[in-house]
Amino acid sequence: MEKKEIIVQQEILGTNKKIALEIRKKLELRGVLVVNFLSSPGSGKTSLLERIAEMLRPGHSMAVIEGDIETERDAERIRRKGVQAWQITTGGACHLEAKMVGKLLPQIPETTEFLFIENVGNLVCPASYDLGESLRCVLLSAPEGDDKPKKYPKAFSTADCLIITKADLFPVLPFNVEQAKKEALEINPRLRVFITSALKGEGIQEVVQYFLDCRKELIQRHA
Amino acid sequence: MEKKEIIVQQEILGTNKKIALEIRKKLELRGVLVVNFLSSPGSGKTSLLERIAEMLRPGHSMAVIEGDIETERDAERIRRKGVQAWQITTGGACHLEAKMVGKLLPQIPETTEFLFIENVGNLVCPASYDLGESLRCVLLSAPEGDDKPKKYPKAFSTADCLIITKADLFPVLPFNVEQAKKEALEINPRLRVFITSALKGEGIQEVVQYFLDCRKELIQRHA
Repeated sequence: MEKKEIIVQQEILGTNKKIALEIRKKLELRGVLVVNFLSSPGSGKTSLLERIAEMLRPGHSMAVIEGDIETERDAERIRRKGVQAWQITTGGACHLEAKMVGKLLPQIPETTEFLFIENVGNLVCPASYDLGESLRCVLLSAPEGDDKPKKYPKAFSTADCLIITKADLFPVLPFNVEQAKKEALEINPRLRVFITSALKGEGIQEVVQYFLDCRKELIQRHA
Repeated sequence: MEKKEIIVQQEILGTNKKIALEIRKKLELRGVLVVNFLSSPGSGKTSLLERIAEMLRPGHSMAVIEGDIETERDAERIRRKGVQAWQITTGGACHLEAKMVGKLLPQIPETTEFLFIENVGNLVCPASYDLGESLRCVLLSAPEGDDKPKKYPKAFSTADCLIITKADLFPVLPFNVEQAKKEALEINPRLRVFITSALKGEGIQEVVQYFLDCRKELIQRHA
């Protein structure tokens, strides 16, 4: 990158970080667990959220912020599950920024326990932007290949958990799940790893339990 | 985006465009067809290139530039096919730029007929950077879903051809190939569409023939 580009980039990230810290502080004090989902396009972020909604909604309140370059499609899918969802369309930008989330804060109901943010489908740029989340989850779908963690390390090194998706395709794909886990854990040994299939419902209960535990821990931390 | 960010972005794109124009002029006059491959991570760019190499190499000379954030893996895969390949590792940057390609030009053999560039896996940012290619191909793998063209329109609107990959997974996926084609053609009616499976070899011959035809047309244009 050119020098001028680097300076502007640092200023943007600095401002973003400040806003993100405020969002995190505000929402954690309210007992809201904010989860930021990162992945390539088509890794199954929305399908995972639909499954989480089915499992979490009966006993807990959740809301969703959807990030996309264009279309309201993902928010509409989430709303069909009876969940309040806001669509941010970036109109070209390749990632969400904290200020976009900040603008929606007044609309988040006081009763919300979980706020899920689905970032723009991009395994690179969103990793550099803190959105004020308490938890960052990176998704890797089986068809993308087990060699992705080392090729796109930042998303994996900055995440708290790795959710391997589309496990129903394991039998028909040259995907080595142990290799994928090994690569990811070499980059980030503290990653919690989940194996899921939104299509078959596999592994979703474990992910939901993890979110419940993380929120409990967050509330104790701020008690 | 902030005003300062937009100005820097415009300067970068302006400089990039100038370098790209020079590269295109130079290589087209030498009869080299430069093809820029864009897609999400794991859509099958390298696998497609391996298949193209098997089919094209016996009668034609080709070279490959591999773009990745980290690792030399993709260039190594291409070299195993007997093809000269250079790896550009961007060290974090989310796309290739024309100047990166320009630096490699002195190393491209005089006899080269086809230069394939595999961009960083990212369906957003690379679409804004002309690399001096004569042809831009966007890949969409079946597991990514048929709803991606309208959600990531720039990659599709700036491409000359759309290569749908992993067609071998059609029977086990909720992917509507006609819907994907329709969406892409609504964004860009001049797109040539190919359906391929690198695993089964399906559709690769048609893609190779298209590249041969495009190079013939390029040579006639500069005769």
